[in-house]
Amino acid sequence: MSGERVKLLGNWASPSALRVKWTLKLKEIEYEYVEEDLPNKSPLLLKYNPVHKKIPVLVHGGKPIAESLVILEYLDETWKQNPILPEDPYERAQARFWAKFVDEKCAPGIMSAFTKKGEEKEKAAKEARENLKILESGLGEKQFFGGESIGFVDIAAGWIGIWARLVEEIAEVNLIDTVNLIDTETMPVLDTWFKRVLEVPIIKECLPPQDKLLEHNKGFHKMLTGGSRGSS
Amino acid sequence: MSGERVKLLGNWASPSALRVKWTLKLKEIEYEYVEEDLPNKSPLLLKYNPVHKKIPVLVHGGKPIAESLVILEYLDETWKQNPILPEDPYERAQARFWAKFVDEKCAPGIMSAFTKKGEEKEKAAKEARENLKILESGLGEKQFFGGESIGFVDIAAGWIGIWARLVEEIAEVNLIDTVNLIDTETMPVLDTWFKRVLEVPIIKECLPPQDKLLEHNKGFHKMLTGGSRGSS
Repeated sequence: MSGERVKLLGNWASPSALRVKWTLKLKEIEYEYVEEDLPNKSPLLLKYNPVHKKIPVLVHGGKPIAESLVILEYLDETWKQNPILPEDPYERAQARFWAKFVDEKCAPGIMSAFTKKGEEKEKAAKEARENLKILESGLGEKQFFGGESIGFVDIAAGWIGIWARLVEEIAEVNLIDTVNLIDTETMPVLDTWFKRVLEVPIIKECLPPQDKLLEHNKGFHKMLTGGSRGSS
Repeated sequence: MSGERVKLLGNWASPSALRVKWTLKLKEIEYEYVEEDLPNKSPLLLKYNPVHKKIPVLVHGGKPIAESLVILEYLDETWKQNPILPEDPYERAQARFWAKFVDEKCAPGIMSAFTKKGEEKEKAAKEARENLKILESGLGEKQFFGGESIGFVDIAAGWIGIWARLVEEIAEVNLIDTVNLIDTETMPVLDTWFKRVLEVPIIKECLPPQDKLLEHNKGFHKMLTGGSRGSS
């Protein structure tokens, strides 16, 4: 089963696709990468993910799997080397809980701070900070969510260390930066953890070029907000 | 590990808590049930689920697990009898995909049809029907999502067979009923599957009393919409 051909349909600027690339790399799985042009989705993508029509899609032995966290679990169950989920069921449950929290609370909050304007933007940024503070509490005193090395939650949440900075710069809001934040709002533990995750060689070498990502997201922001960065 | 004490913090009218009750019953796990009064959450609930402050919470050997789908996976990994997830990684991925679809698409759609008014309500109901049609496509020609017997997706989605009917009655919308629907909108396969799931003895015996549930949700609807059922 694990010897069959693997293909990933992704997009270079997608955090969800990045999760899958990181896991494939970590597990040393050879794969063919297919870049999707999101405004012009390929017939292959529409065939393999007719429900959501979204990347990433992993195709293994001709069979498609969609949804990044579902793909991560599939990879972990099919290729046993370098496991990303812990063995203990309770620890596995905790990992799934925090990954879900990232997708349901942190990601929409950051996206909201990116797309809204004025007071709504500030409100969204505040909520995003509150949720990132909660995420920080889940890390506790560990090096990684996975313990001594990166695991499921680190892979699920690591992209925030890049994208939150982009949102801060482009939308002119404060998320994890220490400037303009009061003490109770800063998150030095999470900030250090982002840096630690993004310095892991396998993680670092899959990252898209920062300048290209900044330009891409500036364009995206302009399209979504009509070009205004201001507070009105 | 599986011999330690199990406690469930739930609420009688909660579909999410029902998922956990069904799984506990299916696996013949003895547990203590604690009914939570949701307008007055207990210190125990706030202690065990400080992030979301929501039921259900499973407490096993003193350690809490929140989020119903996370709890279901934990139960399946800790008590091996009567597995709810298939063994094959690809089939497991499919089950996780559809359970996620239920939570991210079907449930919010049904809730939206319940809480909105007028045109917005009709729009929400239409979207809910579209998503239920997609869910139906995932069942295919199988008896249950789990194959010959109930599994993860059946447990995750079975509540819709009850709650969609309640929403149809209380909010006066059409979700899965065949009345007032055009042919392309009906979902006879899903409808038959709901009936099949809800007739499984273990599923049936955990269901809350229908009349009590109807009254409870009528009150809930009145509170959310200010009492109006009409189309304006």
